Amino acid sequence: MTRLYNDPKQFADEALTGMVLAHPGHVQRVHGGVVRATCSPRGSVSVVIGGGSGHYPAFAGWVGPGLAHGAACGNVFASPSASQVCSVVRAADNGGGVLLTYGNYAGDVLHFGQAAERLRAEGADVRTLAVSDDVASNTPENHADRRGVTGDLVVFKVAGAAAERGDDLDTVERLARRANERTRSLGVAFNGCTLPGAGEPLFSVPAGEMSVGLGVHGEPGVRDVPMGTAAEVADLLVDGVLAEEPERGHDGYAGRAVVILNGLGTVKSEELYVVYGRVAQRLEEAGITPVLPEVGELMSSLDMAGLSLTLTFLDPELEELWCAPVDTIAYRRGAVQQHGRREVTADVAAADPIPEASAQSRELAQTITDVLAVLRETAVAAEPELGRLDAIAGDGDHGQGMSYGTTGAWRAAAAALARGAGARTLLVRAGEAWSEAAGGTSGALWGGALSAVGAALSDDAPAGSADIVRAVEHGGQAILRLGGAEPGDKTMVDALVPFTTVLSERFASGEPLPRAWTRAAEAASHAARATAEIPARRGRSRVLGQKSVGTPDPGATSFALLMSAVAESGLLEN
Amino acid sequence: MTRLYNDPKQFADEALTGMVLAHPGHVQRVHGGVVRATCSPRGSVSVVIGGGSGHYPAFAGWVGPGLAHGAACGNVFASPSASQVCSVVRAADNGGGVLLTYGNYAGDVLHFGQAAERLRAEGADVRTLAVSDDVASNTPENHADRRGVTGDLVVFKVAGAAAERGDDLDTVERLARRANERTRSLGVAFNGCTLPGAGEPLFSVPAGEMSVGLGVHGEPGVRDVPMGTAAEVADLLVDGVLAEEPERGHDGYAGRAVVILNGLGTVKSEELYVVYGRVAQRLEEAGITPVLPEVGELMSSLDMAGLSLTLTFLDPELEELWCAPVDTIAYRRGAVQQHGRREVTADVAAADPIPEASAQSRELAQTITDVLAVLRETAVAAEPELGRLDAIAGDGDHGQGMSYGTTGAWRAAAAALARGAGARTLLVRAGEAWSEAAGGTSGALWGGALSAVGAALSDDAPAGSADIVRAVEHGGQAILRLGGAEPGDKTMVDALVPFTTVLSERFASGEPLPRAWTRAAEAASHAARATAEIPARRGRSRVLGQKSVGTPDPGATSFALLMSAVAESGLLEN
Repeated sequence: MTRLYNDPKQFADEALTGMVLAHPGHVQRVHGGVVRATCSPRGSVSVVIGGGSGHYPAFAGWVGPGLAHGAACGNVFASPSASQVCSVVRAADNGGGVLLTYGNYAGDVLHFGQAAERLRAEGADVRTLAVSDDVASNTPENHADRRGVTGDLVVFKVAGAAAERGDDLDTVERLARRANERTRSLGVAFNGCTLPGAGEPLFSVPAGEMSVGLGVHGEPGVRDVPMGTAAEVADLLVDGVLAEEPERGHDGYAGRAVVILNGLGTVKSEELYVVYGRVAQRLEEAGITPVLPEVGELMSSLDMAGLSLTLTFLDPELEELWCAPVDTIAYRRGAVQQHGRREVTADVAAADPIPEASAQSRELAQTITDVLAVLRETAVAAEPELGRLDAIAGDGDHGQGMSYGTTGAWRAAAAALARGAGARTLLVRAGEAWSEAAGGTSGALWGGALSAVGAALSDDAPAGSADIVRAVEHGGQAILRLGGAEPGDKTMVDALVPFTTVLSERFASGEPLPRAWTRAAEAASHAARATAEIPARRGRSRVLGQKSVGTPDPGATSFALLMSAVAESGLLEN
Repeated sequence: MTRLYNDPKQFADEALTGMVLAHPGHVQRVHGGVVRATCSPRGSVSVVIGGGSGHYPAFAGWVGPGLAHGAACGNVFASPSASQVCSVVRAADNGGGVLLTYGNYAGDVLHFGQAAERLRAEGADVRTLAVSDDVASNTPENHADRRGVTGDLVVFKVAGAAAERGDDLDTVERLARRANERTRSLGVAFNGCTLPGAGEPLFSVPAGEMSVGLGVHGEPGVRDVPMGTAAEVADLLVDGVLAEEPERGHDGYAGRAVVILNGLGTVKSEELYVVYGRVAQRLEEAGITPVLPEVGELMSSLDMAGLSLTLTFLDPELEELWCAPVDTIAYRRGAVQQHGRREVTADVAAADPIPEASAQSRELAQTITDVLAVLRETAVAAEPELGRLDAIAGDGDHGQGMSYGTTGAWRAAAAALARGAGARTLLVRAGEAWSEAAGGTSGALWGGALSAVGAALSDDAPAGSADIVRAVEHGGQAILRLGGAEPGDKTMVDALVPFTTVLSERFASGEPLPRAWTRAAEAASHAARATAEIPARRGRSRVLGQKSVGTPDPGATSFALLMSAVAESGLLEN
């Protein structure tokens, strides 16, 4: 269990602070994460990695010459927000473009994706790559849809080494993609991990059994089998990973491979080495030569009991990059080229000017701030009920997420309003703040939607009802695009689509905005209640979808609730 | 708990095999442990470290340029035997003398001490240093008698860096001693560790409490207190270590210190960094600058839950050595000078010729082998009863240790006899084998005694009764010297001293050897029974001495038993 903490809410933040204090020669703190303490050549590519905390040495432990230029660090097991990612990228940027790379999880894909869109809008050349090495999470045909585990290290290392030797962004991206395509991992777990301050493990495995392919946040595995000897565990992992070995002699693969045997938390180094002895024997029998193998904690999951095996089937170029020197807190090899210290003098992210706005746009911004206050009041009041709904088939944090998100958005809006922001800027800021305050997938979707609504408005031109309806349609499309869910998937989309459809149709047929909105909110409420009949999709939770039949989706419910509150507030009359 | 193993008895050996397979560029296997895979300059000092297994990265993880030249690796939590240490030293020797350094534990002190004596007899310049940094285990005045914990790393690093830059043995030893004198550690534990294959933890701490100063093998701590926050734990550790901070401005100390925050097994890196944040703040308030601090698992104890703080109060020379480049499996920094690969072609230890012996000495060797067979038969038969006695206040392994030790000694004697060994060589070999097979303190004492008896005999000259009595006296003195116990301490010495006293007196007064031996054995048996009235000394076990009142000491009991069996065998008539 996790025993040492002060305020559990501050755990990830305090851990990062301690890490920076202990290793000032390697990293420095910026809003949203860390960047290298040393310079990189101007015009070179920056590799920015990141993800949730609780996976040390991922991700801040891998920042330094030969590896990443920065790491965006979220809360425990939660993606960093888009604005945290943007902040780290701005501080890590060397002018040669940016590769954002992270494990393939819904929250990370959303937030890093949002950040990439925002940075591109600022003129930066930004590419994204979600690492997807875990063979247990999808079929070989859908390798790119697998989740990312310890393969992160290989992909990040290849990208970092390519950037270090001066490759351009196209090349860095191409090599990182190739590394991801050739990397396979499989893990087994013996028990779950405990979040700081929690009395119970987040998930568990029956005593005497091991769960093959269980995800590092408790995502369901492939099967549970009786606990094996070290050699049996080794055989299981080797068999699973070698099942996807490419053909020798093709694409430069000649039987040479990166081999990583990773401990997830409470499996000790001695145990890993006992397992490795058998892994090495099996690989030798298969004619595979390990290239600078690693055995230890390289991607952990707090105090989870388990281990995973990763192989990257090398070609000569990938091998050169894997073997290149590196100097980070948690991973060092050979002699890196020395660079001088780089001081990030001001918080780049904080230096965010408010553009000039017209009086009309500022007036609309005032109304929007009032609407956000209503959303906040509604979400805070509904927090216990939403939490209860979410606990049936999720992790029970939806109420808290909505409460935090609306509060953050309203505060950011009020602050922007005080600095003279127009409607567009105010909504973009409020959206960023929602994502950051709420964390998780729903935070990213709501935040993205608010920012999209803002982007469809202006800081100058006045906005009539038609502009507002069009902006709301933009927000809805952002949710569909970012979330990737479809109606019937038991998500907020089941309430969103009826809402925007009815709103657009009614407004187009001549109803005034307030009345159209009320009808749309009614349709959303009806649709949200109807989600009770749908089983939930398998997600991060170990609880499977069928458990949720009879309970409406919390995301659809909260969406309908907030839209109804806006209708009832009378603010749409303005 | 320790979950991954094949045969628990082979755990330490298999872990070491796996480590060597994973890191062939760093270490190579030799009998008894590992040595560097790379060359060192001829004539340079060799630093050989070691201790029990289960403390990764200690000890094999610290072998490489800038640190140790070899590591002798015992079984889990058990010292390597003297012959294992000798084997590693012979393979690691560069001709410039050897510093043997290890944590200050009875078994390690005994076995490394024996090894040093044996290597010196072969003409090598060998120094020993037992690291003693744990403030909880003794008073400041008795710093050299404290046990060694994470301070090992600092002392080994200083010695290794000094050897690497070409310092001579006097200088390497002096600097290592200075590092040890200026190093202080304190730990807290939240729970014990589980040996491979064991169903229960080796020791435990009540839930919700933490034990301040508990040793890494469960040696009793200073006090138990309620579990604290991360900051409270940090304060407790900082206060404990800073209580012995030397005066600034003296002996080159100017407020600069090595700082190591070490996790013992299941405390995760994120927790350690949260604690480190407060440690850094407290040190800053105290005006102390951490120099390249380390946070992580640097000296573990299987899956023990706990952490420790180590400070070394630096002077400029120690600081230079601490910061010097190093390249080992588990600890790397900067760019080390590259050396070519060194192949240890044959097992140096195995190449151990049997000196020529006279027919008379070979005849005596035959009788001694018969005596060892009797000892073995007796120890094997008494194993359950000795184990039962030992379980009252010890760890219950005395019966097994005696059984393994006598078996190993008898087998080695029989093998040496077959190769034509005389009495001296046969007994020295039998003693080495006893230590190695038995492990633990009693193994070292019995092994050392047999070797000392052998050293007092000859491979050439015939031995009369008087020679045999004198040789046995030598053996007794070796036990007193190596063990450091006195009569009344409830150890085998309580039976040994009456035995040798009566044997010498009776023989001097004219009784023939068989009769004198019988009287001496009777005196030993009487004395062994009398130890029931004495409480045991606090040892490695958490069970305190008073529990043992009413039970005779197992070491004294087994000693008396074996001496009586020899008397009854009739072999002394030859």
